[in-house]
Amino acid sequence: MSVIAFIGLGQMGAPMASNLLKQGHSLRVYDVDPQAVNALEEKGAVATSSPAHAAKDAEFVITMLPNGEVVNAVLFGSNGVCETLSSDALVIDMSTIHPLQTDRLMAQMRQRGFSMMDVPVGRTSDNAISGTLLLLAGGTEQQVKRATPVLMAMGSELINAGGPGMGIRVKLINNYMSIALNALSAEAATLCEALGLDLQVALNVMSGTAAGKGHFTTTWPNKVLKGDLSPAFMIDLAHKDLGIALDVANQLHVPMPLGAASREVYSQARAAGRGREDWSAILEQVRTSAGLRHPLSRINKE
Amino acid sequence: MSVIAFIGLGQMGAPMASNLLKQGHSLRVYDVDPQAVNALEEKGAVATSSPAHAAKDAEFVITMLPNGEVVNAVLFGSNGVCETLSSDALVIDMSTIHPLQTDRLMAQMRQRGFSMMDVPVGRTSDNAISGTLLLLAGGTEQQVKRATPVLMAMGSELINAGGPGMGIRVKLINNYMSIALNALSAEAATLCEALGLDLQVALNVMSGTAAGKGHFTTTWPNKVLKGDLSPAFMIDLAHKDLGIALDVANQLHVPMPLGAASREVYSQARAAGRGREDWSAILEQVRTSAGLRHPLSRINKE
Amino acid sequence: MSVIAFIGLGQMGAPMASNLLKQGHSLRVYDVDPQAVNALEEKGAVATSSPAHAAKDAEFVITMLPNGEVVNAVLFGSNGVCETLSSDALVIDMSTIHPLQTDRLMAQMRQRGFSMMDVPVGRTSDNAISGTLLLLAGGTEQQVKRATPVLMAMGSELINAGGPGMGIRVKLINNYMSIALNALSAEAATLCEALGLDLQVALNVMSGTAAGKGHFTTTWPNKVLKGDLSPAFMIDLAHKDLGIALDVANQLHVPMPLGAASREVYSQARAAGRGREDWSAILEQVRTSAGLRHPLSRINKE
Amino acid sequence: MSVIAFIGLGQMGAPMASNLLKQGHSLRVYDVDPQAVNALEEKGAVATSSPAHAAKDAEFVITMLPNGEVVNAVLFGSNGVCETLSSDALVIDMSTIHPLQTDRLMAQMRQRGFSMMDVPVGRTSDNAISGTLLLLAGGTEQQVKRATPVLMAMGSELINAGGPGMGIRVKLINNYMSIALNALSAEAATLCEALGLDLQVALNVMSGTAAGKGHFTTTWPNKVLKGDLSPAFMIDLAHKDLGIALDVANQLHVPMPLGAASREVYSQARAAGRGREDWSAILEQVRTSAGLRHPLSRINKE
Repeated sequence: MSVIAFIGLGQMGAPMASNLLKQGHSLRVYDVDPQAVNALEEKGAVATSSPAHAAKDAEFVITMLPNGEVVNAVLFGSNGVCETLSSDALVIDMSTIHPLQTDRLMAQMRQRGFSMMDVPVGRTSDNAISGTLLLLAGGTEQQVKRATPVLMAMGSELINAGGPGMGIRVKLINNYMSIALNALSAEAATLCEALGLDLQVALNVMSGTAAGKGHFTTTWPNKVLKGDLSPAFMIDLAHKDLGIALDVANQLHVPMPLGAASREVYSQARAAGRGREDWSAILEQVRTSAGLRHPLSRINKE
Repeated sequence: MSVIAFIGLGQMGAPMASNLLKQGHSLRVYDVDPQAVNALEEKGAVATSSPAHAAKDAEFVITMLPNGEVVNAVLFGSNGVCETLSSDALVIDMSTIHPLQTDRLMAQMRQRGFSMMDVPVGRTSDNAISGTLLLLAGGTEQQVKRATPVLMAMGSELINAGGPGMGIRVKLINNYMSIALNALSAEAATLCEALGLDLQVALNVMSGTAAGKGHFTTTWPNKVLKGDLSPAFMIDLAHKDLGIALDVANQLHVPMPLGAASREVYSQARAAGRGREDWSAILEQVRTSAGLRHPLSRINKE
Repeated sequence: MSVIAFIGLGQMGAPMASNLLKQGHSLRVYDVDPQAVNALEEKGAVATSSPAHAAKDAEFVITMLPNGEVVNAVLFGSNGVCETLSSDALVIDMSTIHPLQTDRLMAQMRQRGFSMMDVPVGRTSDNAISGTLLLLAGGTEQQVKRATPVLMAMGSELINAGGPGMGIRVKLINNYMSIALNALSAEAATLCEALGLDLQVALNVMSGTAAGKGHFTTTWPNKVLKGDLSPAFMIDLAHKDLGIALDVANQLHVPMPLGAASREVYSQARAAGRGREDWSAILEQVRTSAGLRHPLSRINKE
Repeated sequence: MSVIAFIGLGQMGAPMASNLLKQGHSLRVYDVDPQAVNALEEKGAVATSSPAHAAKDAEFVITMLPNGEVVNAVLFGSNGVCETLSSDALVIDMSTIHPLQTDRLMAQMRQRGFSMMDVPVGRTSDNAISGTLLLLAGGTEQQVKRATPVLMAMGSELINAGGPGMGIRVKLINNYMSIALNALSAEAATLCEALGLDLQVALNVMSGTAAGKGHFTTTWPNKVLKGDLSPAFMIDLAHKDLGIALDVANQLHVPMPLGAASREVYSQARAAGRGREDWSAILEQVRTSAGLRHPLSRINKE
């Protein structure tokens, strides 16, 4: 069992800290809200008066804070963690912050001779309570190995994201995809309704296609991800079908800004000479637009 | 076994007609390309010289044609199907055309006393060959029942889409969703690469979340589809996360037009006072933007 | 003075025909609405019973119709213009239709040995009444010369658009630009209001800059249109300023879909290595995205 | 003549400071780059070692810095302006920064009993040299009056933006509009080229319409800005014309993301029941989307 400083006892942090206590760890807790500190004290934690005070003699320092500015202040501010941190300790930032800020924080910690990793979490506050969070671990092999017993007190699944800063990156990608997908799904469902089509029928059909299952594991693996762009479904045809959908939507005045934006991406792919390639080649089109020029296959080997 | 006129023997139509022959149906085939007609004749079909000629004495007339103008000409043009069609016959349009044109064609057929349904297909030309297409049947209960034995010679799964014109509608929705989703997925994967994150790690994480599984069966059923907008994940937070993702993407110059469009949808939701509602309320936001004002629950009961 | 068939006597067509009568031309008029025909008959026109009837013995045939399908039917349908048209006559389509359909109609007319030009109009129905329309003439030099006296009875300004089909093209470009610009202006004005800034102050400032005067005659002529991409204002800075504007707008929940889309265009320009070029280089960026590869200078010399 | 502290001697700041010297003001200058300080010293300025040192005994403190974080540090950091600033002095921030940060800086200055205004500049570094900048003055009437003689040494035109923080706001609006308009103009010009139309012809036509002159002073003043939404040009027709333009563009694979986004705005306006209103009503549509509910006329009276 370890001595752990836990800083940030909000909706997520408080139950996470509780679960660490249940596993028998010694906790030194800090939060700007004294009530939050008291609640944990009653469960057996040691209350402290500052991040510096909390970090004293800790083997692990866990931060679970609202944004990167706060993490920065907690680490480097006056009465901050770095004032008392042992060079043997491991700082684990579990906050969801801007990835490029995570990079800057880590670089500053390294410069001062400290060890830090990023482990943002997935799922909900219910999972924080039940200790079944998804742990997205960004750290060296050694850091991940060292932190695992502590982390698994708070979660039920740990994914090694592949190195320092990668935990927060994979969280960003996941959130981006799910949040934008939500808006796209709303366009499809609204068009469905405007067409007088039962949503359940549409869901039934889409449950068996890339519309419902996504492309990552269906249309891409044997095509663009293998470098095979021979058409199973041609970009020209996909572009034409999008045009029909947008025409219908505009006649029924269903606004579809994501659909409209996507047609222009397919249009660009056609302008680039990809009209007769497989629709999964849209990945190559977007990569090229982003200035990524090395072959895609490198993605999987980095 | 039935007498079936089959008009349109292209990449999809030819193998579909072959499968009908294999099941013992009598086929009268027509195509503008004489070679396509000959190939079916060799397999046992009767070659005909026009749509009118093909439709003579047929119980079913199946059309599998490139677009709605061609379907219109084949039905109503000179030497078209209607010149010889029996009022007892059932016309099945299996082409993928504009849904509002399907409506117009059906209305014209009804006016002339003819019976017509729409059954576009899903999956690929390989499935057309193996007789394992997905059949999206739009017709009355009676039409669907009557057509099923014939249709199942060409496919392995039939979905009753809920009435005339609904087959082509559900195909449109499915294609819209999968084609736009492809572009969104490409943005996420490209951002992933630009961040130096292994795509396989991202796919691993997303396979367990709405990012990979979609919202229709995960985040929506117990929330917006039930009329419960209390937040599991707030629109304000989703909007903030999208902002971080777009900021990162723009720093790394990864163009994300769909992501950018989606942020403005969330922004509109916040302007409409939905900031503290569950993110699934984006569906209600898009519905309102489309002028749909009756309660959402009606979707599931129509 | 000439014998002119005028087909299409709607809100625009009727006053245009009246102005031709006032100048002393002989008019043979046709419309599907008999009342519209009667009104012109009372002013001295000859009523006719079909496009073919109208076109008989006419030196000019003017069409002013709601869309391309109607123009097509009026020219080539039964009792259409081509049944009686003299090969010496000149057909002038003044309708606003799809430019690629104009091309098809013109090709068909040429094949049949007929002469046709496109002259859509600008301005409003008030200008149609006062004979002060803007005439956008698409035709050969000879056609434009021949038609000018007739056209100038209806308008006060004639622009030779540079050849057959160019009149309708320039109308399309003008409308595209003004209609989309309207939406962009609304975003700017709404952001202005959300910021508590007096719109008159903003208009005052913008009246002296490219924001109010446009780029075509201010920032482009000495830069991108001359091939000089050295920066007066860098794309990197423009991208940054757009990012600030979008951040402010999203904090104030002013949706700016056009602004969001434009940031991604600048982002793409940066990905393509144009970050330190002049902002007018966005034109080169969009041209490249559209697959236009020859040097821009050719635009001005074609 | 006044004693002026000038902090920030970059591409813009250096010539602005020179012009103040030429008018006979006493300058105390500071920059992180000693060479920049030396150059001004040679022209007669007093070199100082910190913002605090520069601000000592100054009547005016002018800041011309790259972003808001730097302004914040220069004012409030250690050896910052506030350490020596007289409560009688006036701080003039001429930097282009985030408007909501300007608000925060001003609030902090007020709290400490200091006087501050924002005067960002328009035009180019050439105008900074020749003293012909556009000065966008945000301040109280009294501040503007007091600062005018100093400011006019650097510029040739001063616009009173209407109060503290309004200078930076009007600059943001102007930049937003001109930068996004640049991308829209590039779409129109590229579509023009893809259609084979001479750009000069298009510019000629647009020079007389809202496409070239903008809407603020042409189509809006007598319509939406007066509350008159009776149609001169209907939203339904504008939406239709946009649809044609996008269809042409997509056939010619000219990507038009701004055009595509704008069609969805018009679509939303139609869904909101505005189809038969004047196209200037798009402003009301965007205002409503942004949650602005009070009548538009208030814009002009605030």
